[in-house]
This record gives sequence, C-alpha cells and structure tokens, in this order.
Amino acid sequence: MKEEVQREAKRLLANAAIVLVRPKFAENVGSAARTAMNMGIGKLILVAPELPERDRMLKLATHNAAHLIDAIERHDDLAAALAPFGWVIGTSARQGKKRSTCKAPRQLMSEVLPRLAENRVALLFGPEDSGLATEELRYCNQVTTIPTADFSSLNLAQAVAILCHELHYGLLELLAGGELNPAPRQAEKGELEAMFAHVEEALLAVGFLKNEDDYWMRSIRHFLSRIGLRAKEIKIIRGFCRQLLWREGERSGAARPPGAKGGQSLNR
Amino acid sequence: MKEEVQREAKRLLANAAIVLVRPKFAENVGSAARTAMNMGIGKLILVAPELPERDRMLKLATHNAAHLIDAIERHDDLAAALAPFGWVIGTSARQGKKRSTCKAPRQLMSEVLPRLAENRVALLFGPEDSGLATEELRYCNQVTTIPTADFSSLNLAQAVAILCHELHYGLLELLAGGELNPAPRQAEKGELEAMFAHVEEALLAVGFLKNEDDYWMRSIRHFLSRIGLRAKEIKIIRGFCRQLLWREGERSGAARPPGAKGGQSLNR
Repeated sequence: MKEEVQREAKRLLANAAIVLVRPKFAENVGSAARTAMNMGIGKLILVAPELPERDRMLKLATHNAAHLIDAIERHDDLAAALAPFGWVIGTSARQGKKRSTCKAPRQLMSEVLPRLAENRVALLFGPEDSGLATEELRYCNQVTTIPTADFSSLNLAQAVAILCHELHYGLLELLAGGELNPAPRQAEKGELEAMFAHVEEALLAVGFLKNEDDYWMRSIRHFLSRIGLRAKEIKIIRGFCRQLLWREGERSGAARPPGAKGGQSLNR
Repeated sequence: MKEEVQREAKRLLANAAIVLVRPKFAENVGSAARTAMNMGIGKLILVAPELPERDRMLKLATHNAAHLIDAIERHDDLAAALAPFGWVIGTSARQGKKRSTCKAPRQLMSEVLPRLAENRVALLFGPEDSGLATEELRYCNQVTTIPTADFSSLNLAQAVAILCHELHYGLLELLAGGELNPAPRQAEKGELEAMFAHVEEALLAVGFLKNEDDYWMRSIRHFLSRIGLRAKEIKIIRGFCRQLLWREGERSGAARPPGAKGGQSLNR
C-alpha cells in the first residue's frame, strides 16, 4: 500500500471507535485496545459501572497500546456513550428470526466506509456471555454477524479483531482504488435521542401515545434510527413536534412551551 | 448463505489446519482452538516440545472446542508437522526488505481456496515474541502479512482469527458464486523434503555443492518450495538425481546406489 493511502486511512479511522458494553473480562478490553492500535481505530469506549483492573488490561494491551487504555472513555449508559456518533454498527451472534437478515461485515463496508469522512462511527459489542440486548441493538444503524461454521459464538477479542480488520483493510482497498465519496454528516445519536424525547412528548400531547415507553414509540424509534437521519431532517421533525405542542398548549389554554414560537417552528 | 454452500465449505475446510510454532501462552492455543471451531478449520497442530497446560487452554477454548484441544497433534519439528501438507501459508509481521512483497491475506485467497479441494492447507504462525524464523518461512508457498496501521505486531490469537476468517469467508463468497475450480494436488511437504535430501546428495556427488547446508542449497530449496511442485514433477526431479548419482558411482567404480537402475531412473 502506498504511504498516502495509509496516511489517509489513519486520518479517517481516527473517527472510528470500539464500544464495549459491560465486558466481563479485563483481558478482552486489553485485547481490544491492542487491536485498536493495530488497526488505527481512534478510541476505546466502555459502557460499564467501572473500569476493569488496569494491570489485567495492560497485560494484553502491551505497552504499545497503554495510551489507549489510559484514554478509555467510560460511560454509565449506552445513550451517553453513543451520543457523538453518527453511525453505529452493532454485532450479533444470534441467529434469531429477527436477525436472519444480518449481513456479514464485508457486506456493510460499501455503506460504512464513506461515512468515516463526516461522521464518527462506532463498532458496538455486547457482553461475552449474552451479546447486545434487543434494546441496545435499537441504537444501531446496521447489525452485522460474523459468519461462522457450526459454533457461532466468537470470543469477544476475536470478534473485535475481525471487525476492525474488515474496516481497516476495506478502507485501504477503497482508498487504493481512489474511490471514497464522502457520505453526508448523519445526525449524531445524541441529537437523535433529544429528538425522540421531543417526538414522544408531542405524541403524548396529541393523544397518539397513551403512556411513556409505549409499543408504538419503540417502533417509531426503531424506524427513525434505522433510516439514518441527517442533522437537517432532525430539525424539520423537531419543528413539527414543537408546532404540535404549541397547538395543544393553545387548545388547552396553557402557556406556550418554552422556545416555541408558533409558525416559526423551523427556527429551533 | 445457503445451506449447501455452508456444507461444502465445511467439507473443504476440514483439509485446513492451524499450525502454531512454539506458542508461549496456553491461552493463545485455546483461542486458536475456538477460532478453528468457529471457522470450521479441521485441525490444530503444535510444534513444541510439549503440550501446554490443558486447563489454561480449555479456559479460552471453552467446552465447545474441547474436542479440538484433545485432538491437538504435537510435533517436535516443523518438517514432520508439515509433511502431509500440500500448501503452506506463513504469517509474518516483519516488514524487512525481503518481505516487502508480502501480500495481505485477502490477496492470497484466489490462489489458496481452489487448493483446498485436493490438498491439505496449513496456516502457519510463529511464536508470540519473534514470529516465524527465516528458516521456517522456507517451508511456505506463500507468506502473508495482515495489514496494520502504526503498530504491526498483532496478538497471536487475533492474527489466527483474522486469517481463519479470511479463509472461511472467502470460501463462502467463492462457493456462493459457484466458482471453485479445484487446483491439482501439490506435492506434500514430506515428499518435498525427501526430494531435497535427494537433490542435495546428487549435487554433492557431482561437486556442485561443496558441503552440506550450502548457501546454494538453501537458495535451491527456497526456489523449489516456492513454485509449488506437483507430485509428478517431484518424480522427474528425483529420477534425474538418481541418474546423476548412478553416473558418479559408475565413474568412481563404486556400487550403484540402492534402488538406482541406470537409465530407468523415472521408475522410482
């Protein structure tokens, strides 16, 4: 590979992160740090109540990836961890009915790689024993399953290595062909979450939803997550929500919601 | 993937093996067993003075790959371990001058996959700290380097996972396209080794080589390993060696070498 290709790959992969949800073994976190270092992935993020023991992580990270261990970003919940990401790839070993359409990592690359130019991209992995929960897969724009023979459950550290390799090598190949057409900036998961809160508030106000955590709200969430909304489209949806809330407020004679200005709903 | 594709992939991958040379950590052997199980690779072979502690291997192999741990084939030396293999892919992280031509695993697949039909294929990995020695790379038909960013040294278990994934997924893709044209049976490494001994004997007899372990012999070995001789071609080369030895024996008035019959040299 030419040097400029490697340099450009490194610049783009700085936008990628490995996100581990409640990993059980410190050694797997260490391995993930080493893989991140090997493949030029910019960041390692943990969703866990606390950081694993540093020495156990370092043993597998080796001193070469020690700086990534020291820079681990820890979050209590997944929504906070994913807030700045515009594209999330979830991993699943399960072959349940709902997941029969899961693509192999390589089949996602033509979609994922161009997003690295304008978006932060997360590779999301669940706990060693249970994988990502259905609720957690809702944050994902795409879900992938690494193809296996009889025994589908890969060790976490190996799954991380294979997915990061597919990302890194796929990008090298794409750049060597000189074909990266940057995909536009997606809305970040944090913007999406704020929008969902707004949508839920509006749908409750107009009586479409009966209570919070409604079945329909989960379906709407799923749908709006999957289609990959852009920042501008979120602005439109939220403007519409604000308008609904304003109308309801007027109807019930209450004061306007703070920040709402009636017809100027797109200015938010 | 369709079921028949997966079944055919499994049948072909039974001909593949992971060969670990002097691994230092039992855990990496356990991980390799699990990866073999995940990817349908038929066998795990160790070149080491003794087997690692079973419990430490099992911890990472999990009970799902326990049968592969119990079936590990151990050899004292690499030549014996590789004897039944017709094609050997070596792995190297080093970026030395001689290895600048190393291809990425994916670039080898069009060459390797058709060989699974008629040949046993070995994926060869060196020790964690030093990798394969130059002498060991001589046994390889191809040497591959997994592309990395700054830090080129992958953990052994991760390198095994990535290479096995490339083999498994590459085969699934190829079979899904319905395009496997079986490559002819290569000479096995054991047949090659017997031929090298014969070639060396003949070259010493005619005075082309001055002593054993000659520089030229290493080059000849390297060349003849690399070109992927078929069983039939080995027969021809050995017939020529026998003829040379017979002529030398006649010239010096000594008895014919055992098995040599002068002009009938191709019958061996």
